[in-house]
Amino acid sequence: MELQARALYDFDPENPGEISVREDEILTLYSERDIEGWFEGANSKGEAGLFPASYVEILPTTAAPAAVVVNNNSGAPRPMDPKRTRAPMYDNMALGGPNNPPDKVDNFSPGSAQRPPHQQQHLQHQQHPQHQQHPQDASQGSEDDWYDDWDDSSTVADDPPSAVYRDFDYRVSTTTTTSSSAQQRGGHQGKSSATVGKNLNRFSTFVKSGGEAFVLGDAAGVVRDWDRLCVVLGPHGPAWQDDPYPFACAIDDPTKQTKFKGMKSYMSYKLTPTHTQVQVNRRYKHFDWLYARLVLKFPVISVPHIPEKQATGRFEEDFISKRRKGLIWWMNHMTSHPVLAQCDVFQHFLTCSSTDEKAWKQGKRKAEKDEMVGANFFLTIGTPAAPLDLQEVEGKIDGFKAFTKRMDEGSMQLNATVGEFARKQITGFKKEYQRVGQAFKILGQAFEMDQQPYSAGLNQAISITGDAYEAIGDYFAEQPSKDLDPIMDLLALYQGHLANYPDIIHVQKGALTKVKESQKHVEEAKMDAPQAEGIKERCNIISFATMAEIQHFHRIRVRDFKAQMQQYLQEQIGFFQKITGKLEEALQKYDNA
Amino acid sequence: MELQARALYDFDPENPGEISVREDEILTLYSERDIEGWFEGANSKGEAGLFPASYVEILPTTAAPAAVVVNNNSGAPRPMDPKRTRAPMYDNMALGGPNNPPDKVDNFSPGSAQRPPHQQQHLQHQQHPQHQQHPQDASQGSEDDWYDDWDDSSTVADDPPSAVYRDFDYRVSTTTTTSSSAQQRGGHQGKSSATVGKNLNRFSTFVKSGGEAFVLGDAAGVVRDWDRLCVVLGPHGPAWQDDPYPFACAIDDPTKQTKFKGMKSYMSYKLTPTHTQVQVNRRYKHFDWLYARLVLKFPVISVPHIPEKQATGRFEEDFISKRRKGLIWWMNHMTSHPVLAQCDVFQHFLTCSSTDEKAWKQGKRKAEKDEMVGANFFLTIGTPAAPLDLQEVEGKIDGFKAFTKRMDEGSMQLNATVGEFARKQITGFKKEYQRVGQAFKILGQAFEMDQQPYSAGLNQAISITGDAYEAIGDYFAEQPSKDLDPIMDLLALYQGHLANYPDIIHVQKGALTKVKESQKHVEEAKMDAPQAEGIKERCNIISFATMAEIQHFHRIRVRDFKAQMQQYLQEQIGFFQKITGKLEEALQKYDNA
Repeated sequence: MELQARALYDFDPENPGEISVREDEILTLYSERDIEGWFEGANSKGEAGLFPASYVEILPTTAAPAAVVVNNNSGAPRPMDPKRTRAPMYDNMALGGPNNPPDKVDNFSPGSAQRPPHQQQHLQHQQHPQHQQHPQDASQGSEDDWYDDWDDSSTVADDPPSAVYRDFDYRVSTTTTTSSSAQQRGGHQGKSSATVGKNLNRFSTFVKSGGEAFVLGDAAGVVRDWDRLCVVLGPHGPAWQDDPYPFACAIDDPTKQTKFKGMKSYMSYKLTPTHTQVQVNRRYKHFDWLYARLVLKFPVISVPHIPEKQATGRFEEDFISKRRKGLIWWMNHMTSHPVLAQCDVFQHFLTCSSTDEKAWKQGKRKAEKDEMVGANFFLTIGTPAAPLDLQEVEGKIDGFKAFTKRMDEGSMQLNATVGEFARKQITGFKKEYQRVGQAFKILGQAFEMDQQPYSAGLNQAISITGDAYEAIGDYFAEQPSKDLDPIMDLLALYQGHLANYPDIIHVQKGALTKVKESQKHVEEAKMDAPQAEGIKERCNIISFATMAEIQHFHRIRVRDFKAQMQQYLQEQIGFFQKITGKLEEALQKYDNA
Repeated sequence: MELQARALYDFDPENPGEISVREDEILTLYSERDIEGWFEGANSKGEAGLFPASYVEILPTTAAPAAVVVNNNSGAPRPMDPKRTRAPMYDNMALGGPNNPPDKVDNFSPGSAQRPPHQQQHLQHQQHPQHQQHPQDASQGSEDDWYDDWDDSSTVADDPPSAVYRDFDYRVSTTTTTSSSAQQRGGHQGKSSATVGKNLNRFSTFVKSGGEAFVLGDAAGVVRDWDRLCVVLGPHGPAWQDDPYPFACAIDDPTKQTKFKGMKSYMSYKLTPTHTQVQVNRRYKHFDWLYARLVLKFPVISVPHIPEKQATGRFEEDFISKRRKGLIWWMNHMTSHPVLAQCDVFQHFLTCSSTDEKAWKQGKRKAEKDEMVGANFFLTIGTPAAPLDLQEVEGKIDGFKAFTKRMDEGSMQLNATVGEFARKQITGFKKEYQRVGQAFKILGQAFEMDQQPYSAGLNQAISITGDAYEAIGDYFAEQPSKDLDPIMDLLALYQGHLANYPDIIHVQKGALTKVKESQKHVEEAKMDAPQAEGIKERCNIISFATMAEIQHFHRIRVRDFKAQMQQYLQEQIGFFQKITGKLEEALQKYDNA
């Protein structure tokens, strides 16, 4: 039987593949499952294509109830492209949808059917970190898929390298009326709040992350002792409690492995955590899977992005070296984070024997069945007794928001500048010094024709000077990989974090809005005080976690940038000293000339 | 009464202003004086213009003798453009002739009336030294001219900036038949050689310099003791006897002087020779005059070129500084040369009071009446008793010829490379370092928004790092004037010398050819042995002088290039140390960050 829907608002297509719908138009749906917020179907004119799921209501196949199910929540959650969201999508059909449709309907106001203003997107430098969720992502695939070679054989770039960082046009819906289409929602919602409305916009990060559900008291789960996390009050405010067993993890040069009798090959990275001292082998797809789990689990933690995927040249030395450096940085940020470092799925990844497939699958299945994800993650957080001053928190979050924007801009500019500087040194600077060296040598060679015994020393010295300048040209060309590339690696990692923060801040802002709403409702006697107090307490937890995460960010930022700047300057000093030494060597040749 | 000439050969015009003449055609001459080898007149078709003087014979106005006077030698000698010749022209009407006609007829063979192949000309770098002889050159002008302001008011660039250096297609005419038109020649020719022919080509440097006249024994003059010069045998062969009273001469920053109630202004250079310690003021035109006298006087000495003339921007700081540096180098080479340093006209220039106009004019007149110029200069040279092995000399001269060609090429390339390198440092390098500095500072400014007290040290350190890179950009831009410009100044001076050597070598080669011819004539009994012996002896003197000059060139070349390369490297080392210091300063800021 044909599935039909009725358009609630007008929609005009903006991109290829989209079709127009008019209010009250009856549409044919090809599936009741939306594709990242879009339905595929046909309009009354017979045009087939995509239109926003939230613009329509599905018509019942037999009866016609007033409230319709817009979204089908069946199927295990899977992460969206982590660049865009950190929360599970309530469908598992993320294949082939239009480019990032959620952005489109993210902020729309149903009454006017307006589109949100296009989010400001920064031009993406190529070193910019971006983790592209793979369409055949195995996070919930069968175990058969899992060992498939998609990491090596699949096409990449299904997601264009769009901007990672979005400007802060946070979308906190303040609607207080509960839309009929939002009445029925699946997942962990134990009870529904009738007075403080849920966000109409199911694409809101606040909703997707589970933040809304938690704040409204809809999260429920059994928190085991070992799942508990603590936010403590440190000298600079809320902070994650330090990892009592800090460790690091070395990543050695990867080796090329083959399977299917050499038909397929892949790179295997050797990880050696300091707390086990047992080496395990992991492939890029394992990192990718882990990353997806972490993003799903932790709504207000900035999970470091793993280095970008690359389809071609995966076995080229430069790429391998670059990815390895990226993974080392990533690992450093993982083990530096008190929450991430200790979490089960990461520990499984670090410690499970690479040869014990059964144990790996067991751990993998366990991680994928983890209940303490999203909304429930907040249940695991313990906070200091004294609640935060939420107004103060709001100010600090706003300050941090402004900070990340500036840091993102500054990082991007530095990245572009440093990249260009590296290119200039490798090409132009090298060429100039080598040309000067060659010109000296040519003059020295001319001088050698002078038949004067007393000029032999000079001629040789000039020739050596020429050699010195040629060497200096090489020094300039070699230097960027030693000092500028590490800066770019660091910036890439941080640009990944900066891309995470808008969503983190959005969750906290959403919680704060709920508090304000509930206070208003209490004033208007639409809500009882204890319920509002519950919202406030849960917002306090989210705020503590957010503040702790921000604190952690600043702490590692200062640590990392200080270390990297020192290393950079030391490298630069060594570089110029090497040049000086080469020139001094040449100068000495003139002493007896 | 109309002056007429008969064409000896066909001539077809090649350039505007030239007219065609046919063999035996009767031509009307407007003057019996040729203009640098060209007569002005009209052909039988009534066309007026120029034709080669050597293609015609002047018809006597009354009788018709077989031998005709081709050239009128009346008038005091004046120097040609020193780029092209070092010897006096036998006319004083060098104005307005076609561009360098001597080249055209330089090598022609009368029988076929062929033109010489165009001399290979190197592209001229703009720093290439070139001294343009001024058309209103006062070397023989009235004393009234002398104090005229031609240095300031005249137009420049009457001579296009053509190549200074010419390839070594030396034109040694080996004609043995004495052309009737070359029979009568004016000047100091005491006797004429009937058996070893004079060069038909009066534009040959060998002829113009007086080399031919001297070798053929035609030079005559009273050599006073103080005019005597000595070539001695040094450890590396013939050398000019050292100046027993070596001195140097400082050139201070010039001052701008005005005259005609401020209507005219000029730069006045303050010279202070060490042997008098009395400061004298000289203008550029005085250098120019001196230079012209020296070129006229010394046929086989490479007179250093004075810095180029410049019509506009003469009072701009850059130009003044550049010319002063050029004059300092010039002065260094003047005082370093045992012959030039001691000569009367230079001493007059260095020591005559700037306020005693009468003394100046007296010395000037004396210099212009000096008889010991050109051919007679060779009379003043004393040589070691043992004559040189002329075959060996020939080999050495050929080797030097090859050397100068290579050095010229090498210098030109180094000059161009260094010029470009300087430009890159001033523009590109500076820009790159400053951009990096700015990008660091922008990131540091972003970091300052982080509200974290513990990051203040880092933020400041990053800002200081930014400052350091901006400073390094400036260092790069400032550096070329300290190390590359002096190299270019040196190269400019040497390119001037290299431009002189083809003519010097030409004179020696001409003398050698005369020796070979005379030996052949003796074998053929066309010349008596003593006459040939005289030619050989005089060739020996020219060869000693040439070898001494070459030796001097190598000696100062090794001295100058050694010193300049050392200075360059020291500057470069200091430069990179300064950068290192700046970076170390920045690095220290991170210690407490």
